[in-house]
Amino acid sequence: MKHVAEARRYAVLRRRIDRYLHTVMKKRPRSTARELWDACRYVVETGGKRVRSTLVLLSCGSVGGRVESAVHAGAAVELMHNFTLVHDDIMDKAPSRRGNPTVHVKWNLNNALLVGDVLLGLGYTCLLSTSSRNIQRIAQSYTTGLLEVCEGQALDMEFEQRDDVTLREYMQMIGKKTGGLIAMATELGGLLGGGTPRQVHALRDFGAHLGRAFQIQDDLLDVVAEEEKLGKAIGGDIVVGKRTFLLLTALERASGRDREVLEAVLRHGTETDPATRAIDVTTGERSRVVEAVTDIYRRHGVIDEAVRHIERSTARATAALDLLPRNASTRMLRWFSELLVKRAS
Amino acid sequence: MKHVAEARRYAVLRRRIDRYLHTVMKKRPRSTARELWDACRYVVETGGKRVRSTLVLLSCGSVGGRVESAVHAGAAVELMHNFTLVHDDIMDKAPSRRGNPTVHVKWNLNNALLVGDVLLGLGYTCLLSTSSRNIQRIAQSYTTGLLEVCEGQALDMEFEQRDDVTLREYMQMIGKKTGGLIAMATELGGLLGGGTPRQVHALRDFGAHLGRAFQIQDDLLDVVAEEEKLGKAIGGDIVVGKRTFLLLTALERASGRDREVLEAVLRHGTETDPATRAIDVTTGERSRVVEAVTDIYRRHGVIDEAVRHIERSTARATAALDLLPRNASTRMLRWFSELLVKRAS
Repeated sequence: MKHVAEARRYAVLRRRIDRYLHTVMKKRPRSTARELWDACRYVVETGGKRVRSTLVLLSCGSVGGRVESAVHAGAAVELMHNFTLVHDDIMDKAPSRRGNPTVHVKWNLNNALLVGDVLLGLGYTCLLSTSSRNIQRIAQSYTTGLLEVCEGQALDMEFEQRDDVTLREYMQMIGKKTGGLIAMATELGGLLGGGTPRQVHALRDFGAHLGRAFQIQDDLLDVVAEEEKLGKAIGGDIVVGKRTFLLLTALERASGRDREVLEAVLRHGTETDPATRAIDVTTGERSRVVEAVTDIYRRHGVIDEAVRHIERSTARATAALDLLPRNASTRMLRWFSELLVKRAS
Repeated sequence: MKHVAEARRYAVLRRRIDRYLHTVMKKRPRSTARELWDACRYVVETGGKRVRSTLVLLSCGSVGGRVESAVHAGAAVELMHNFTLVHDDIMDKAPSRRGNPTVHVKWNLNNALLVGDVLLGLGYTCLLSTSSRNIQRIAQSYTTGLLEVCEGQALDMEFEQRDDVTLREYMQMIGKKTGGLIAMATELGGLLGGGTPRQVHALRDFGAHLGRAFQIQDDLLDVVAEEEKLGKAIGGDIVVGKRTFLLLTALERASGRDREVLEAVLRHGTETDPATRAIDVTTGERSRVVEAVTDIYRRHGVIDEAVRHIERSTARATAALDLLPRNASTRMLRWFSELLVKRAS
């Protein structure tokens, strides 16, 4: 097996973050505002690959900082990520997350709303436990990340109501929604590790490109993944008419009958009530539509274009790493970014 | 007219905050994520007495700091306050605020959720523009305030589902929900102004007592205010069975038929669907119930007890001010706290 050492080190870092988060949650009361704290523990302690935290730790190490000193900030980024998941799930009316019912389903909307708010507050609490000369800049970077993610989510919701979204707009949106948080994670690591302005900039670039590759890979997996590995049905984005890299690229290329099919898919997306959506997701029509759209994607080279885009963004991310010291953490960042964009789920 | 100078100075500080907030909102984009930013402007720029901001500025001045240096933090506290209003209004399904439709009514739930998140992000942005040696401690204090307010709101929601809430629990809840933010505001001012630990502690105490007085005054106004001045119907808390200082004190004192009436009011509160509430708020029954309960309050000395409690908390707040330098800002704090607890709306 290749890269055994890297996989082992990732497991160590991940456990370190898990342990830290467990301590944070354990300190919270058990008897007062019980629903709130139970639900916070439920979100934070049931899974997650701690990808963003690990990026903070490794970025810190890559510029020569002590990885341990970045654990507070690593946990803070994970908590902000969890905050966005809980609030996004409310907005998307998502029934489940990581195979478990979402907070607003398991409890209720009001509790989920507050849980999100509290997770963000805990994120700042962890971040501000950091001891660093750069603390003001670090907290500013964290806050910029927060605002970017929120703005990205607002754009994503706006796009759901529009059928004239361009690929360019989509790339801007994912740059904020997915890229914002990852670029913030790698930048924070650089600031914590005491990197030079050039190194911090390179780390931010690395994160931004990686975030883009990560999101397009996510879009791609919806049609090319194996269902068991993905853990959900293939073509879910198509069925709900989600504006993805694939759909928007296809719309720029297709004409005639193909275009009509894609526009029908787009319209289904603007239909917010699942019951009245034109595609009946409970019958065989689902697989027929998914197949037809996937076929259009293939014929117009959309899948290949996505793969090229992922490769290009990954190459740019890797190029940014060339500006950093060549040490074990930088090598881990390289390995980690390849792992992320080659993942099967 | 008495206190003309103080009233004039308050108007000046209030305008300073308004102007600062206007600049913050003006910097936000107008063309992208438009619903989000329009709604943020709507919340921030339509009113509010800027009470909490003013407390930050005056607290800073009271320990010898430059009031101007606290404007960032003053705006930050106002933004956090607005964040809580937008999210609380979602949870309470409130149709209007300050005479205008709430964000989730004027736009929708998803936008309101994000608007709250963004206002909090902007709050941190303003706070972190502060130039102070104490910035880490300042940001920690702000974050503690955030968590207290959220926990207070969680308790408030929990109480709605229970009919065995004690007065003691209620006092703890308002200590967090209302007191948390005000104590944070005055503490921040002290930290910004470079106060000694003892002064900062005194300012925090001042804020905590003032917050308590402020909330009980709020509860009291529901039955003793003049309808035109209050800007909403008298007895609103009674009709929805809200657990207030008055209701919980009355429950500790009343027995027999009086107790039955109060328990019926409590039960109405646990009935979340207004349509099936036992008190029909659209008919004359409303005024009959409000009158009956107000009469119980009077007969059991509940109104007097509330007034005594407000006076006691105000006296404690004022006593805390005695530990501060005697200057114009400290005098203003004294005047301002009297103004707040003697207000008619």
